Amino acid sequence: MPEVVVYMVEGRSAEQKRNLLKGVTQALVDNLGVPADAVTVSLMETPKHLKSKGGVPFSER
Amino acid sequence: MPEVVVYMVEGRSAEQKRNLLKGVTQALVDNLGVPADAVTVSLMETPKHLKSKGGVPFSER
Amino acid sequence: MPEVVVYMVEGRSAEQKRNLLKGVTQALVDNLGVPADAVTVSLMETPKHLKSKGGVPFSER
Amino acid sequence: MPEVVVYMVEGRSAEQKRNLLKGVTQALVDNLGVPADAVTVSLMETPKHLKSKGGVPFSER
Amino acid sequence: MPEVVVYMVEGRSAEQKRNLLKGVTQALVDNLGVPADAVTVSLMETPKHLKSKGGVPFSER
Amino acid sequence: MPEVVVYMVEGRSAEQKRNLLKGVTQALVDNLGVPADAVTVSLMETPKHLKSKGGVPFSER
Repeated sequence: MPEVVVYMVEGRSAEQKRNLLKGVTQALVDNLGVPADAVTVSLMETPKHLKSKGGVPFSER
Repeated sequence: MPEVVVYMVEGRSAEQKRNLLKGVTQALVDNLGVPADAVTVSLMETPKHLKSKGGVPFSER
Repeated sequence: MPEVVVYMVEGRSAEQKRNLLKGVTQALVDNLGVPADAVTVSLMETPKHLKSKGGVPFSER
Repeated sequence: MPEVVVYMVEGRSAEQKRNLLKGVTQALVDNLGVPADAVTVSLMETPKHLKSKGGVPFSER
Repeated sequence: MPEVVVYMVEGRSAEQKRNLLKGVTQALVDNLGVPADAVTVSLMETPKHLKSKGGVPFSER
Repeated sequence: MPEVVVYMVEGRSAEQKRNLLKGVTQALVDNLGVPADAVTVSLMETPKHLKSKGGVPFSER
């Protein structure tokens, strides 16, 4: 029952996110030998002003 | 000071969530012998299209 | 498929932790109406010198 | 590449959050000797009714 | 700078874990269009007696 | 009651980690106006072979 949490900034399309859920799941199936239904993935979208790199919010980079 | 994070999809009632915060806290008090005020619980509600099982978003299951 | 992560310091007995897994699971079953098998709980035990309250490690409190 | 996640309730000003991102990053730079650009910080703001202390939501404390 | 955290029980081989790090990274590159070097992945291995499904530790399932 | 989780690879000295706990706490006190005792910080040290950047484990970079 691996669970995956992806921390990312907002701004991806619905299709990108849908495909990401599928792709990450498949990576676990392929490499751990677990059935797909045992894998949950949560995408945690953070608004750009609430996430930083180098101390600078992504809204200002 | 245990901290609990619950990852769940959106769609529960306000009362369910209020009771869940209380019930999880009580489980820690009962089993770890900590005072209730030492326990924090955060409910991370993920929109259904951002969480998947088996690679399929909960919005489509 | 709610997933629960509990962040706690090391030092609890095997029995406390076993009961905690059961108790937290039951709190979700009772309050969200999900089947027990849909609930996963992970206990993340942090060594006392790697967790602090008030900036002071639990190993020194 | 340390990553930091801060779990907090909603209600801080934009300036507080901006400064927090900078201050936490600086704490890692100062104490781990990593370059600022290697540090990411995510602020996870939880609505007050979804986070509790002592089993009581912050919206009611 | 998406960051990924995978919560899993102990017991996978070194090669499985190495391939998993690569496979999850590739899933983000493919689906979000980010460079590989922007992606960090952390595998959080939980001992089997500290993680449960249905309230039963994986050490007893 | 903000809680902070820092995901980092192993290999820092005891003193670095002790100072990091203090420094991160102070950053929250300074910028959110919370008392130090309301702040908990957990350092999650990941072995270098279990964390990657660009799909390559830190043990091989």
